[in-house]
Amino acid sequence: MDFVVRSVARVLSSRREVLDDQWSSESSFIVFNDEVPLEALVGLSDFSHVEVVAFADQASDVPPAPWRRRPRGNPAWPEVGIFAQRNKDRPNRLLVSVARVISLTGRRLELDGLDLVDGTPILDVKPVFSWSGLRGERRVAPWSDELGRGYF
Amino acid sequence: MDFVVRSVARVLSSRREVLDDQWSSESSFIVFNDEVPLEALVGLSDFSHVEVVAFADQASDVPPAPWRRRPRGNPAWPEVGIFAQRNKDRPNRLLVSVARVISLTGRRLELDGLDLVDGTPILDVKPVFSWSGLRGERRVAPWSDELGRGYF
Repeated sequence: MDFVVRSVARVLSSRREVLDDQWSSESSFIVFNDEVPLEALVGLSDFSHVEVVAFADQASDVPPAPWRRRPRGNPAWPEVGIFAQRNKDRPNRLLVSVARVISLTGRRLELDGLDLVDGTPILDVKPVFSWSGLRGERRVAPWSDELGRGYF
Repeated sequence: MDFVVRSVARVLSSRREVLDDQWSSESSFIVFNDEVPLEALVGLSDFSHVEVVAFADQASDVPPAPWRRRPRGNPAWPEVGIFAQRNKDRPNRLLVSVARVISLTGRRLELDGLDLVDGTPILDVKPVFSWSGLRGERRVAPWSDELGRGYF
């Protein structure tokens, strides 16, 4: 079933190329569209972190991108399905990122550690609650920890 | 800017009504569409938790729902903007939930603590990495901790 979604904001970032690592060296903002009233942002500064849902407009859908691949094409890592990895080339091209709020000025939200390139359309911003994330003990595939070195 | 997204799976849950609390008492599955090849799910069982992006088809868009409201209409809590709350009635009606993987059998992924009602269309499933969530210390609005009591 198909649904239409619309960008509510856009990323303004010092990173203009699609690259994988060292995201914390970038300066990033989310700039909400003029149609978003300022009242929609009231209370956002009470939270240290936000969860951002973005549309990866520079990525590939699946298909044509493969349903299964080695993360980053690294031969040392196993071939895993697209739903077992966070690769941007995925069905619907939706990305979910958590970033730290630095400041909110008008419709400009300054963030630390936002892993989205300049111009990326934003579909939603949500606060991170104490209890909206993981509950219980975490277990991950070893390749994903290796992949994370140098990401931020 | 508009984008078209498509459901890749659907929720099968013992909860059929839209209710807020006690989600951990429910039995929940994500059932992937037949068009999703099994190879897309390889490696998912190596992760204890998944992040699920859903389309809240029974919720209201904003507008007509308000840009700012008291969470759950509770007069004890402040009026906050829609981007400072996780209310399902929001622009684009996209929900992000983290749930624990119980098992994967064919295209059926059994989950614990999935806060989505039966029939909800799923747009994406991603593994939770050690490093894909929050970095640094968390700070939240007090109302959100109160709201969380009894949620799971």
